[in-house]
Amino acid sequence: MSTPKALDLHPDRLFPAEPGARAIARRLYGQVAQLPIISPHGHTDPSWFAGNEAFANATELLLIPDHYVFRMLYSQGIELDALGIPRRDGSRSSVDPRAAWRLFASNFHLFRGTPSSMWLNHVFHEVFGLRERLDAGSADRYYDHITAALQQPGFRPRALFDRFRIELLATTESPLDLLQHHAEIRASGWPGRVVTAYRPDPVVDPEHEEFAASLERFGEITGENVYTWDGYLRAHRQRRAAFAAMGATSTDHGHPTAATADLPADEARRLFEKVARGGSSAAEAELFRAQVLTEMAAMSLDDGLVMQIHPGCFRNHNARLFERFGRDKGADMPMRTDYVNALKPLLDRFGNDPRLRVIVFTLDESTYARELAPLAGHYPALFLGPAWWFHDAPEGMWRFREQTLASGGFYNTVGFNDDTRAFLSIPARHDVARRVDCAFLAKLVSEHRMDEDEAAELAVDLAYRLPKQAYKL
Amino acid sequence: MSTPKALDLHPDRLFPAEPGARAIARRLYGQVAQLPIISPHGHTDPSWFAGNEAFANATELLLIPDHYVFRMLYSQGIELDALGIPRRDGSRSSVDPRAAWRLFASNFHLFRGTPSSMWLNHVFHEVFGLRERLDAGSADRYYDHITAALQQPGFRPRALFDRFRIELLATTESPLDLLQHHAEIRASGWPGRVVTAYRPDPVVDPEHEEFAASLERFGEITGENVYTWDGYLRAHRQRRAAFAAMGATSTDHGHPTAATADLPADEARRLFEKVARGGSSAAEAELFRAQVLTEMAAMSLDDGLVMQIHPGCFRNHNARLFERFGRDKGADMPMRTDYVNALKPLLDRFGNDPRLRVIVFTLDESTYARELAPLAGHYPALFLGPAWWFHDAPEGMWRFREQTLASGGFYNTVGFNDDTRAFLSIPARHDVARRVDCAFLAKLVSEHRMDEDEAAELAVDLAYRLPKQAYKL
Amino acid sequence: MSTPKALDLHPDRLFPAEPGARAIARRLYGQVAQLPIISPHGHTDPSWFAGNEAFANATELLLIPDHYVFRMLYSQGIELDALGIPRRDGSRSSVDPRAAWRLFASNFHLFRGTPSSMWLNHVFHEVFGLRERLDAGSADRYYDHITAALQQPGFRPRALFDRFRIELLATTESPLDLLQHHAEIRASGWPGRVVTAYRPDPVVDPEHEEFAASLERFGEITGENVYTWDGYLRAHRQRRAAFAAMGATSTDHGHPTAATADLPADEARRLFEKVARGGSSAAEAELFRAQVLTEMAAMSLDDGLVMQIHPGCFRNHNARLFERFGRDKGADMPMRTDYVNALKPLLDRFGNDPRLRVIVFTLDESTYARELAPLAGHYPALFLGPAWWFHDAPEGMWRFREQTLASGGFYNTVGFNDDTRAFLSIPARHDVARRVDCAFLAKLVSEHRMDEDEAAELAVDLAYRLPKQAYKL
Repeated sequence: MSTPKALDLHPDRLFPAEPGARAIARRLYGQVAQLPIISPHGHTDPSWFAGNEAFANATELLLIPDHYVFRMLYSQGIELDALGIPRRDGSRSSVDPRAAWRLFASNFHLFRGTPSSMWLNHVFHEVFGLRERLDAGSADRYYDHITAALQQPGFRPRALFDRFRIELLATTESPLDLLQHHAEIRASGWPGRVVTAYRPDPVVDPEHEEFAASLERFGEITGENVYTWDGYLRAHRQRRAAFAAMGATSTDHGHPTAATADLPADEARRLFEKVARGGSSAAEAELFRAQVLTEMAAMSLDDGLVMQIHPGCFRNHNARLFERFGRDKGADMPMRTDYVNALKPLLDRFGNDPRLRVIVFTLDESTYARELAPLAGHYPALFLGPAWWFHDAPEGMWRFREQTLASGGFYNTVGFNDDTRAFLSIPARHDVARRVDCAFLAKLVSEHRMDEDEAAELAVDLAYRLPKQAYKL
Repeated sequence: MSTPKALDLHPDRLFPAEPGARAIARRLYGQVAQLPIISPHGHTDPSWFAGNEAFANATELLLIPDHYVFRMLYSQGIELDALGIPRRDGSRSSVDPRAAWRLFASNFHLFRGTPSSMWLNHVFHEVFGLRERLDAGSADRYYDHITAALQQPGFRPRALFDRFRIELLATTESPLDLLQHHAEIRASGWPGRVVTAYRPDPVVDPEHEEFAASLERFGEITGENVYTWDGYLRAHRQRRAAFAAMGATSTDHGHPTAATADLPADEARRLFEKVARGGSSAAEAELFRAQVLTEMAAMSLDDGLVMQIHPGCFRNHNARLFERFGRDKGADMPMRTDYVNALKPLLDRFGNDPRLRVIVFTLDESTYARELAPLAGHYPALFLGPAWWFHDAPEGMWRFREQTLASGGFYNTVGFNDDTRAFLSIPARHDVARRVDCAFLAKLVSEHRMDEDEAAELAVDLAYRLPKQAYKL
Repeated sequence: MSTPKALDLHPDRLFPAEPGARAIARRLYGQVAQLPIISPHGHTDPSWFAGNEAFANATELLLIPDHYVFRMLYSQGIELDALGIPRRDGSRSSVDPRAAWRLFASNFHLFRGTPSSMWLNHVFHEVFGLRERLDAGSADRYYDHITAALQQPGFRPRALFDRFRIELLATTESPLDLLQHHAEIRASGWPGRVVTAYRPDPVVDPEHEEFAASLERFGEITGENVYTWDGYLRAHRQRRAAFAAMGATSTDHGHPTAATADLPADEARRLFEKVARGGSSAAEAELFRAQVLTEMAAMSLDDGLVMQIHPGCFRNHNARLFERFGRDKGADMPMRTDYVNALKPLLDRFGNDPRLRVIVFTLDESTYARELAPLAGHYPALFLGPAWWFHDAPEGMWRFREQTLASGGFYNTVGFNDDTRAFLSIPARHDVARRVDCAFLAKLVSEHRMDEDEAAELAVDLAYRLPKQAYKL
């Protein structure tokens, strides 16, 4: 076996190569490197912070929950069963977690240049203190080292939360979640600020595979007759209030499109009745989701919750994989997305109201300069979420800034979201975002489009001030 | 109050940071920095040059007419009434112009990194000699200094025109405009070359809110029976000739899409009759606009006017704002735009004729490499207008070059358009365009894709020779 | 006449200007500069290598077959007849090839910055040893020098093939081609590896102008009753086998869209019968092409041929030019293309099978990050072809890498295709691709996202190993 290769995290990573611009980036980054992390949108599991149990091993922690990672392995012919990914029915292949780790390690070259390699190397180096590169040769040493570390108190969820300097972490829950873990966290006396966010898709999307069951449960939980339009809306209001009581400051909506609607009350009622009975067509389902977005905006004006819209994904594109492994297995695919027409009904009703805050995201980068920046650079209620999901690599973040700056400026954006299930990667992701923003600002300064003191103020705004303000934290 | 921050215009702004490439950019820019300005497409008011009256104050000159500026302020919750923007009915809030200026100044940070900040800082520094940055602290000094300067003879429109070294400035008028200001300019003996351009949208777009009234007026002005297809076309020919007599060398067409049509004469006639009666559907209105584009191309072959097509904007997207404040208030939004199918009818008829010159623009950058450059790199009649409106920032100009070069080359493009109502920003805008082109060429030279003598020739072509040739000036 | 300008090929061309990054690029390029050329997809004429006749003159070799070149000249008003481009009926204007060359030479500035100028200058400098730039003044010297060189043995096709260090060259033939030239090459004892590829469009596309005649001929050649669905499919299988015997390892499909279908057998049969009778509508033609793609994938699982899909082109956009000059005259135009929905039927059936290899290309760059990289970064059967046709300039190649890296990585891509009819430009094109990849990797290394040893391995993978593996060579 060859000599182990050194794993290095260069202090100037992601900064421009040109020495003058690099020096500027370094100074800007110096202003933000140590700022606390604001994570207003993500998918970590609140039970981690409620129970504070140790993570089991390297594979369970870093491989199993990270669909960015196993989708790439799968694309090169590695079966999900060979990695031990849980199946839809809850069963798992009997693969040894160490064997899964070795398979991952010996294919780690597949991630060269991708954000996953950056995030993982950051975790290896900074969280676990590893100093050799991951490959087939180092796989076992990695597995043993990480798995051993996880048994130590300093690697429990709350200790990592503190070590990561997280000032706020939002999780995302369905209206059907009783928020017990959040209640436990609050009751525990631990001062870490973990809040929820209201994600009502299962009771909003008639095409969700569990819509009927979810609707029934929605009624049970709220005690409302959710089969009437008024009862359904009251149930939302009730759960939103319960979420706000558990710290939520935002809602989140993951629809196939950005369509909104503003139907007359009678039509909305009739549409709901059809949807609730389970007989809606695809077009009716789309119209219903569209109408609910506008209803949610109306509720936000009352309860103050910030509204996030995450449209444009063809969920569960791989029919066979969905059947065997279920949702969120790396088989969601971005689609072309329209905003200018889609958002108009909602904006016509509420877009001019500066008390409302709607944060829009996209998986269709062609809309950054064409639709989203012009919309956000005009409507008081509209803000742009950061480069998202398939686009939160350095290149995608750079394109976001480069394509939204002219019409949207910096101040109609809301800072970074890590949007992750991979808890340990949170510092890595925020670090990448801060570095890319500093590199982008350094380019503007080095080309004399902005003075360095302005860029320094902006760097802090983007890393810390804007997310707090946008999400009312 | 803190020490005023210095306002600086760095001589190397917008040039690449790498010293070798920067030196090339500097040499290339040296060839073009002092060339006269050719402004073949814009929206300044010809009455300024006819009457040569002093501009009133800083707010009236720099804030009120610039929807790039007040749209950004509006997006952050500042009411248009608080800035004194005129309403649709001509009334205005009673806001003091100085108070409006202070509001603008204290929010000037919103423009960091945007083209507006570059253009405005250029105006402040070069036109008014200001040397501190605009902010809340300097707002009054700015207001007083600019307002005082405007009373001096050297700041009257014609003096600025000369100082700006403008060789030609085109304005844009409707067929209903009698071009009196243009006639006055010509009669005045002042040698400044201000010409008009023929923009017939109000009598071409059946969905324009003033279409019926415009059509009636079109008939009065021309003495033609514009309610017959032949009379309507004769009226266009007559007004085009009148515009050409006032120096026009081009027409301009701002349609929602790039659709063209080439209907048989009978169908065109029947369509027109329906449109003229006011009963056309949305599809018929679209088809009518499409047909008129092809008719305009036919007329261009006769009278030699260069044809500009500016498609792809959803005008007046904000219904409530449109109701209160009317058109051109920063609420127009770009849309996805097709060219390959849309332009085919016109190109099938005239695209192979090198005597015709059709300059196409886009607000949908995804068409640069995919549609526009391939079309312009093949059809003799087709040329590409520069990065436009939402895309005329340095990043947008760079993307235009980078995405049109391979298939379109440089010589199927037509140089820069400032397209502005903001007269004082014209030198700033042309300077930005020249700098970005020189930076782009410097990259090609520094990567050994072109010799510097070729780049130097190109720099002059792009800044001066191509616009004169493309617009037949 | 002015002093001739020197023609120079700088050893650092296409590398980043910043000295640190340039040094890295230079070292990486040093690893790949001399690697043999793998050309798995292109359009050279196999008769060149079968007959090994001398090329006639500079015009016939470099101008007449290169629609990248004459489309640009045409776009500036130069008639194809003035260049001697063959017409649809096989006739040609009586233009002297030297006069055509002069016209080209005196317009060579039109290509500044385009890939054609890079490729041609490479050919002039490296293949012909020319050291002055092409322009009106050097036109005759060029013509005489090149034409004389072509008469020498070292400039015959096989000698150039060897000199270019081509390890494998694939041509593309229709199922109606009896592959006689390929048989001759194999029988000749010459060791150059020239293979065919199966491109069945003429018998797959009901809208092809020669579909009916092609189908008839398809039956004659194969002895199958190709007017029945089963016979038609058997004929494909037979020709695919014949192509494989002549070295083919791939098929190629140039459809207007990426649509695939997976119809029940009965529906497919009925659709075919309608298509075969010649009465299919546009929608039926589209569905038929879609269905055939899926059938081809099924056959690929049996015979192992790699499947290439090249969709998204509006062929013969210029009706008048098509009438006079026929296909492939620079009048094809890219269109917006959907993949996520279009490929689903094929992927639902075969996408999870790692034995299948489908290489997808695009002319719609907006799909790189949005659709293609996410699809290829998930489905085992799917790989991404390189930047293609209108996008194989350095800028286009850079965008390909920058927009596919995050979700697709490097290892779901397949190296470079030159895709050319211009035989002499093959080394130039591969050299450009290698340089751009090395420059891209150098950026990643200089920004500390990858170690240089990883980049060096990748450079070799991209230039040599991945194309051999992807195309099973």
